[in-house]
Amino acid sequence: MKTSPDRVAQAALLAMLIELSSSPKPGNVDRGHDFEEIKFHHFLISAVSAYPVFKDAAQGSESTGTLIRRAVSSWKGWGLFQNTHFGSVALLVPLAVAAGKGGDLKDEVVRVLVETTAEDAVEFYAAFKIAGARVAEVEDLCLKDPASLNRVRSEGRTLLDLMHLSQGHDLVAREWSTGFERSFALSEILARRVAELGLNDGVVMTYLEALAQVPDSLVASKFGIEKAEETSMRAGSILGLEVQETLRLAEELDRKFVEDDINPGSTADLIGAALFIALVKGTILRSEE
Amino acid sequence: MKTSPDRVAQAALLAMLIELSSSPKPGNVDRGHDFEEIKFHHFLISAVSAYPVFKDAAQGSESTGTLIRRAVSSWKGWGLFQNTHFGSVALLVPLAVAAGKGGDLKDEVVRVLVETTAEDAVEFYAAFKIAGARVAEVEDLCLKDPASLNRVRSEGRTLLDLMHLSQGHDLVAREWSTGFERSFALSEILARRVAELGLNDGVVMTYLEALAQVPDSLVASKFGIEKAEETSMRAGSILGLEVQETLRLAEELDRKFVEDDINPGSTADLIGAALFIALVKGTILRSEE
Repeated sequence: MKTSPDRVAQAALLAMLIELSSSPKPGNVDRGHDFEEIKFHHFLISAVSAYPVFKDAAQGSESTGTLIRRAVSSWKGWGLFQNTHFGSVALLVPLAVAAGKGGDLKDEVVRVLVETTAEDAVEFYAAFKIAGARVAEVEDLCLKDPASLNRVRSEGRTLLDLMHLSQGHDLVAREWSTGFERSFALSEILARRVAELGLNDGVVMTYLEALAQVPDSLVASKFGIEKAEETSMRAGSILGLEVQETLRLAEELDRKFVEDDINPGSTADLIGAALFIALVKGTILRSEE
Repeated sequence: MKTSPDRVAQAALLAMLIELSSSPKPGNVDRGHDFEEIKFHHFLISAVSAYPVFKDAAQGSESTGTLIRRAVSSWKGWGLFQNTHFGSVALLVPLAVAAGKGGDLKDEVVRVLVETTAEDAVEFYAAFKIAGARVAEVEDLCLKDPASLNRVRSEGRTLLDLMHLSQGHDLVAREWSTGFERSFALSEILARRVAELGLNDGVVMTYLEALAQVPDSLVASKFGIEKAEETSMRAGSILGLEVQETLRLAEELDRKFVEDDINPGSTADLIGAALFIALVKGTILRSEE
């Protein structure tokens, strides 16, 4: 199914904004709290300012790496110089390119990833620097110093190659490496939960389930894999109850995670990707929720 | 100063989204609470889906009334059939047309309003019906029945003429009738408050000052002018203190207003217009707040 470029851009913005504002989402910025440095409105800016880039993505007018760099660069236009949506952008840009092509979204996104080049890798590196994303995330991509970039070029390593190298340590890279397998699976869980519980609570429950399922790589990059595994166990411990009880306990968990600086941001990025897929497929918000 | 169409559209979205998410904003949907029927994400949808219309507005490609009808119609594309941003759209569309022309924004918007025709009035009537906006707001515009529309056409009454008829009872109509005088004044207060207090608290303080200053017409249309005056007095009673104390009392006031179904939505619409002006002029979010 071919989705109009404006509709693709709107799906990308809504995915980011609905993910952002669903609450309580333990450890992440939501309607309940900001962080000291990064505020709710910073995420509004990084979503809204990238609209033209998502529209161009759906029109297939530029390469994936360039689109990612442009999306991240667009934030500066409204005074934002911090990293907010880098992981989201890295997931949503190839999905937006795929959605603009028509055809089966899952097949198309694999084609988009396979077609990336060494130039896309170089552009991705530039985007990384612009966004000021966590260096720990990039080490396995061999992108931490310009010299390795020259090697990327001379060896003709594509952006997908680099993502393969990092898939063991980074949830976003894993999505690239697996054709967005988990994002598509989460989008189906999401559609069911939203049908049962409405949009906000459906998103929150899907987030908790995703966090319980796989340790978050942003938490792991900050505190190590044991802490990330413990975080997932704690999310899992409030599942399997009455939904209202889970949501109440999620508020407590949120307070504890924020106290301990535990921020499962990669899981939030995956929820954004799952929301985009569900919005484009029309499995949520087709009629009113 | 001429602002690019994409930047105008982004300013319109950011104005709506920043207004929406600034908290506590007594009586209105904010990060602290939804209403039973209208949720936070409904406002995300009505902002995001109108992007192409705001962009077209800045390109001057269609008449003001048609743009307002199209903006309101765009919400349905994402399953939204309730009124969220009708007042905002009625203010932001002429401002977006003006911002796209270059020149002084205040002079340009007056020109945009003066150039409206009877066809704009007819389109506005259609937008009203699509959005399901409160009928009480429209009575003075003579727009409650189709017969009066025929009269609008035959008498050549413009949309601005109809706004003049309603200016005593509706804050949005008053802005049209006065060349957005209050929106521009509020945008200056807003820029100062944001510079002092940061974005969220600056918006909240400007909202409280605006509400204290002039009774809200949505509250008046629901409960009468006395209640609207009392609402303004209550907002005024928490001003003039330490800012942190005002913000704490604003949370209490919010709970009371929500209990009593007091929703100063027209004042929120004006804050959206003030945010748009400040964003386009670069008096907020030029560098980071």
